[in-house]
Amino acid sequence: MSLQVAQIGEEALIAALGEIFGHFGDGKNLKNQKNLLFGIGDDGAVLAPSELATVATMDLAVEDVHFRTDWSTAHQIGAKVAVANIADVYAMGGDPHSLLVGISLTGQEEVDWVLDLARGIADEAKKVGAQVIGGDTVRGEKITIAITALGNTSEPIYRSGAKVGDHLVISGLPGASAAGLALLKAEKRELFPEIVRAHLQPSVDGKKAHALISAGATAMCDLSDGLLVDVTRISEASGIGLRINLDNLDLSSLSEVGSALAVNPISWVLTSGEEHLFIATLPPSAALPEGALQIGEVIQGSGVEVTGELSNAQTTNGNSLISSNVWNHFEK
Amino acid sequence: MSLQVAQIGEEALIAALGEIFGHFGDGKNLKNQKNLLFGIGDDGAVLAPSELATVATMDLAVEDVHFRTDWSTAHQIGAKVAVANIADVYAMGGDPHSLLVGISLTGQEEVDWVLDLARGIADEAKKVGAQVIGGDTVRGEKITIAITALGNTSEPIYRSGAKVGDHLVISGLPGASAAGLALLKAEKRELFPEIVRAHLQPSVDGKKAHALISAGATAMCDLSDGLLVDVTRISEASGIGLRINLDNLDLSSLSEVGSALAVNPISWVLTSGEEHLFIATLPPSAALPEGALQIGEVIQGSGVEVTGELSNAQTTNGNSLISSNVWNHFEK
Repeated sequence: MSLQVAQIGEEALIAALGEIFGHFGDGKNLKNQKNLLFGIGDDGAVLAPSELATVATMDLAVEDVHFRTDWSTAHQIGAKVAVANIADVYAMGGDPHSLLVGISLTGQEEVDWVLDLARGIADEAKKVGAQVIGGDTVRGEKITIAITALGNTSEPIYRSGAKVGDHLVISGLPGASAAGLALLKAEKRELFPEIVRAHLQPSVDGKKAHALISAGATAMCDLSDGLLVDVTRISEASGIGLRINLDNLDLSSLSEVGSALAVNPISWVLTSGEEHLFIATLPPSAALPEGALQIGEVIQGSGVEVTGELSNAQTTNGNSLISSNVWNHFEK
Repeated sequence: MSLQVAQIGEEALIAALGEIFGHFGDGKNLKNQKNLLFGIGDDGAVLAPSELATVATMDLAVEDVHFRTDWSTAHQIGAKVAVANIADVYAMGGDPHSLLVGISLTGQEEVDWVLDLARGIADEAKKVGAQVIGGDTVRGEKITIAITALGNTSEPIYRSGAKVGDHLVISGLPGASAAGLALLKAEKRELFPEIVRAHLQPSVDGKKAHALISAGATAMCDLSDGLLVDVTRISEASGIGLRINLDNLDLSSLSEVGSALAVNPISWVLTSGEEHLFIATLPPSAALPEGALQIGEVIQGSGVEVTGELSNAQTTNGNSLISSNVWNHFEK
C-alpha cells in the first residue's frame, strides 16, 4: 500500500489527518482539551474564553530551504516545524495549547509519508499538552508547512525588558544543530548520529523557559536564528548594550565533531539556530537555573560587544567569527 | 527604484512590512485594537483576555494554483487570501480581529510588489476592524501565503445545526467568480471586467452573516468550494437531507457572459467557489434577510437532492451538471 495523495483525494486525506489530529476536541489526556469548543471539521475552530492572555505565532517551513526529504523523515520534519512554533510561545512566557496546521503538497507524496508528517506535529503538540485544532491542505509544487501556535500566558515576557546590570543567560549550550548540519553537508552523518539528530529533530523544553521566568527574567527569546543574531534583538528591543564572554564555556561536547570537520566549534555556538534554547536576562541577584549558562551582562549603550579570546577568533578560512553571524533568509 | 527582496534582505523587508501592518498594536481607528497587547516584533503577538470565545482559521494560497501573478495584481492576491480567511471567521458566527501572515518568497520579487501584497491584506483586515499582528517571511520557490485569522464570537454557529423543515438560504447569487475565471481562461477578460473582478478581487460582507444569525440561522458556512460541495457539508454535519430547487433564480446578471462563452450559467452557480457568500439554514418562520435567496429546504434523510428543470440540465459537452460539481484540490 503506497497510495499517493492525488489518488485518494482531498476529502480522504483530510479525514485521515483528522484521525491523527483528533476530531472535534475529543483528544484524550490533554490538559488543555477543555478549552476547545470545536476542532477540525467546520470553517474554523472555536476556543472557549480564557482569563489569560493569548500568545499567537506563525512559522513557515519550505522543502529544500528548511528541510530536505532525503535527510529527514516525515515525522522529523513535522516535529521540527511544530517545535519551532511551540518554542516561540514558551519564549513569550506562554504555554501552548493549540496548533493550526497548513500543508501544501504536490499530490505525488505517499499518503503514509504525509500521515507520518502529521504524526510528527501531533506528537510534539501532545508532549506539551497542546493539540491540532484546524488547518488547511492545498496543492503546491514544493512541500510547505505553515503552523500557527496559540498559547495562554498570565504574564507575557518581551525582548524589551533587559536592564543594565542584568546577567545574560542561556538555558544550555548551543551549537549542536549547526554541527549536525555541517555533518550532513559533509556527508558524515554516520560519525556523530546524536549531533545530527540535534539538527533534524530538535526538542524544546518548556520547563527551561518556566525556570528562567521563575528566576525573574526581565527579557527572553528563544534561540532561533543564532546566538549573536538573537541577542542583538534583545539589545535593540531593550535599548541596552550586551557584553558577551564565551571563553569559559565547556565545548567538550562539540570538540570531537569540530576536529572531524576541522571547524572551530565556537563558530557553531555563535551561529547555530533552530535549537530552541531560551536566552534571557536575569537580575544580578537571581539564582542561575540548573543547566543554564551565564554568557554575559547588560551594559549601558547599544550593540553587542564580544570580549575575551573569542573576539579575535577566526574561522578556518581566516574570516572573523564575529562578523560572519547573520542568517539572512533571502541570501543567495 | 525596483529593488528585489534579496537585495534588501530579510530585516529590511520585515521592517517595511511592519510599517504597513502597524507596529506594536499602535494601529489607529481599529475597533479591536485595545485587545492587542503586543503586535509585530517579538517571538509572538499577545492578545488580551476576552470574555468571548475565539474562532481560529488558517488558509494557504499558492502561486499558479490559487492565484496567477499575470492575472492578479499583488494587492488583489493579498486581499483575496485575507478575504477567504475573514469569511471563515464570519461563517462561524465570529468577528475577525487579528491576522497572522506567513509569506514564502523567491527573493526575486520586487520589494514594491511584496509591499503591495501586504497592503492588500492590511486593507481587507482594516475594512473589518482587524489588523495583522504577526507572521513569518521565508524563502521558497513559489510564492505561498498562509493566513491565520482570529475572531471573537459570543455564539458560534456550526454546520451541524440544520433541522428538518428549515429553509436553505444563501446571502446572494453565486456564479460570478467561476464566470470570471472562465473569461480569464478564454482570454476574454476585457469583455466583462466587473465579472472578472469578482474572481480576482472577491469581497466579503460580514453584515450578511450577521443578518442570517439575527434571523435565527441554525447552521451556516461560507461559499468557498462551490454551492453543491458546501451544502453537502451542511447535510453531512447535520445528518439531514437537503432538497434544492434553483429554477426560480434570476440569472440575468450572468446570462450575457454565458452567451459569450457558450456556457449554461447555472453551472457557474453550482460550482463557483471563493465568493464568500454565506449559506445558512433558517427556521421556516424566519424572515429572509435582504438580498438573500431561498434555494431549498431541509428534509429527512441524507444527501442533496436537486429538483426542477436543473436536475436534468447538461453542460454544453453533454455531461450532467449535477454530477460535475466536485472541486478536488489534488485533482490533476
